[in-house]
Amino acid sequence: MNFYEILMKRRSVRSFKDQKVPQQIIEELTDAANNAPSGGNIQPLSIIIIQDNEARKQLAQFLDGQPWVQNAPLSLLFCIDFYRVKKWASMSDSDFFGENAFLQFLIAYADVICAAQNVVILAESYGLGSIYVGSILTKINKVRKYFSIPNYVLPVISLSIGYPERIPEKICKLNKSVVVHKEKYGVMNDDGIGEAYNNKYKEFYDNFDKYLQKAYVEAIEYDKQLDTNMVEKLKERIEKFKIKNPAQFLFNIRYPAKAMVAMNKKLFRELKEAGFEFI
Amino acid sequence: MNFYEILMKRRSVRSFKDQKVPQQIIEELTDAANNAPSGGNIQPLSIIIIQDNEARKQLAQFLDGQPWVQNAPLSLLFCIDFYRVKKWASMSDSDFFGENAFLQFLIAYADVICAAQNVVILAESYGLGSIYVGSILTKINKVRKYFSIPNYVLPVISLSIGYPERIPEKICKLNKSVVVHKEKYGVMNDDGIGEAYNNKYKEFYDNFDKYLQKAYVEAIEYDKQLDTNMVEKLKERIEKFKIKNPAQFLFNIRYPAKAMVAMNKKLFRELKEAGFEFI
Repeated sequence: MNFYEILMKRRSVRSFKDQKVPQQIIEELTDAANNAPSGGNIQPLSIIIIQDNEARKQLAQFLDGQPWVQNAPLSLLFCIDFYRVKKWASMSDSDFFGENAFLQFLIAYADVICAAQNVVILAESYGLGSIYVGSILTKINKVRKYFSIPNYVLPVISLSIGYPERIPEKICKLNKSVVVHKEKYGVMNDDGIGEAYNNKYKEFYDNFDKYLQKAYVEAIEYDKQLDTNMVEKLKERIEKFKIKNPAQFLFNIRYPAKAMVAMNKKLFRELKEAGFEFI
Repeated sequence: MNFYEILMKRRSVRSFKDQKVPQQIIEELTDAANNAPSGGNIQPLSIIIIQDNEARKQLAQFLDGQPWVQNAPLSLLFCIDFYRVKKWASMSDSDFFGENAFLQFLIAYADVICAAQNVVILAESYGLGSIYVGSILTKINKVRKYFSIPNYVLPVISLSIGYPERIPEKICKLNKSVVVHKEKYGVMNDDGIGEAYNNKYKEFYDNFDKYLQKAYVEAIEYDKQLDTNMVEKLKERIEKFKIKNPAQFLFNIRYPAKAMVAMNKKLFRELKEAGFEFI
């Protein structure tokens, strides 16, 4: 399979075989991460390799019990690491205040994600599956404490990896013409936007179970792996909250709009406690 | 060449042939971007394809005249796009306040970088070279205005792509053991940190021209493409500021520590003017 095919077929995998990732592959995955592009080649990156059973269980617990985090034989915890950079600067009789410079934070965050995406793609090419878990950012203090992460180091995303037990169907994406603009940004009119999302989410109306399989396979995998009745509960909530369309499903139930804003306070507090403060 | 080799040999390229990127390849690159992982599959991404001569010149001017931005036949401008999501939510009688939710911003930013890194890797596999330019974030207003970018859309990174004229030598990276931790974060002692960076930057002391080639090829490419005498000027500044080591070079000259913090004010103002405000 060529690169293009691999990039096009990749799906987030949430169901893993009980089969270890060989050490040689872990070496190559972390090589690829370490060789990712980095702004100014500062490399403000640390990766914690998690394979230990107890640590996998703990990490899953921090992340609302996501069973795939526990069941994956390998998780990589990607961190913005300014601790090492600051130490080096200080030992070199120089300053580094990236923890107070939002631009430096954003460049470092991009570095970390480039490294993680290198791993995603290389893993895919070896027949592994992977799943990003970004909700690490809602549990910074707990994660930092458990993994002995010092100040000026911020865990931002974890990537769980393993041989797939089940690979979900291809996910629906917006038509590329919605996302890509030529020379200038072309503002789409309301009809165009409506049509774009109706195409993407047409199963919401036609076949809700099929929609869930594609758009929210988490619920199904929760049930398969933990016997949680999550799909049933979801359907009850959809009825209760009178959810009529996929946007309401996304922004009232999955990423409730006001709750997301309300999370700022804790997020900025935990950033500050980790030594990061921009304002 | 297999994936691993491609990921390991990739270098940022700043010197491009005068040869267009075929349309079919542009289609595949943007397909790969559109198919990148996205938190909740919200796809808050827009990509502006820039090939027009005048636009390339303008983009380069916004970015301190970086000649490779003008000389690359193709640049992709990656944006966090909450405009489309907000419109869709509002048309669906729902709310979306990602522009005020820092977590949603960080997830969207990760989505955009995953998409960009897919492009980097696929481009590399086709024998193309690419270079990220993150300093877009220092010129948000100008870039938004020129490319007709509406509110709630934030250009965060540009990627210039083309067939390489010169591919720089392999860049020096920290030894992987410095970046990778097993099960817990292992705080390195000062000696270890000193040694790690001395290894990475040993040419700073041994052979400064070689060091520049690896660690700051920008200066050399500026001179080759624009006849700017930048390397000479750099050496003068190094003498004037009594730069004694690579950390001082990085954080006094290239990313001056205090100046990076001082940029917060403009960055947050321009974010706010684009409709993004978290606090």
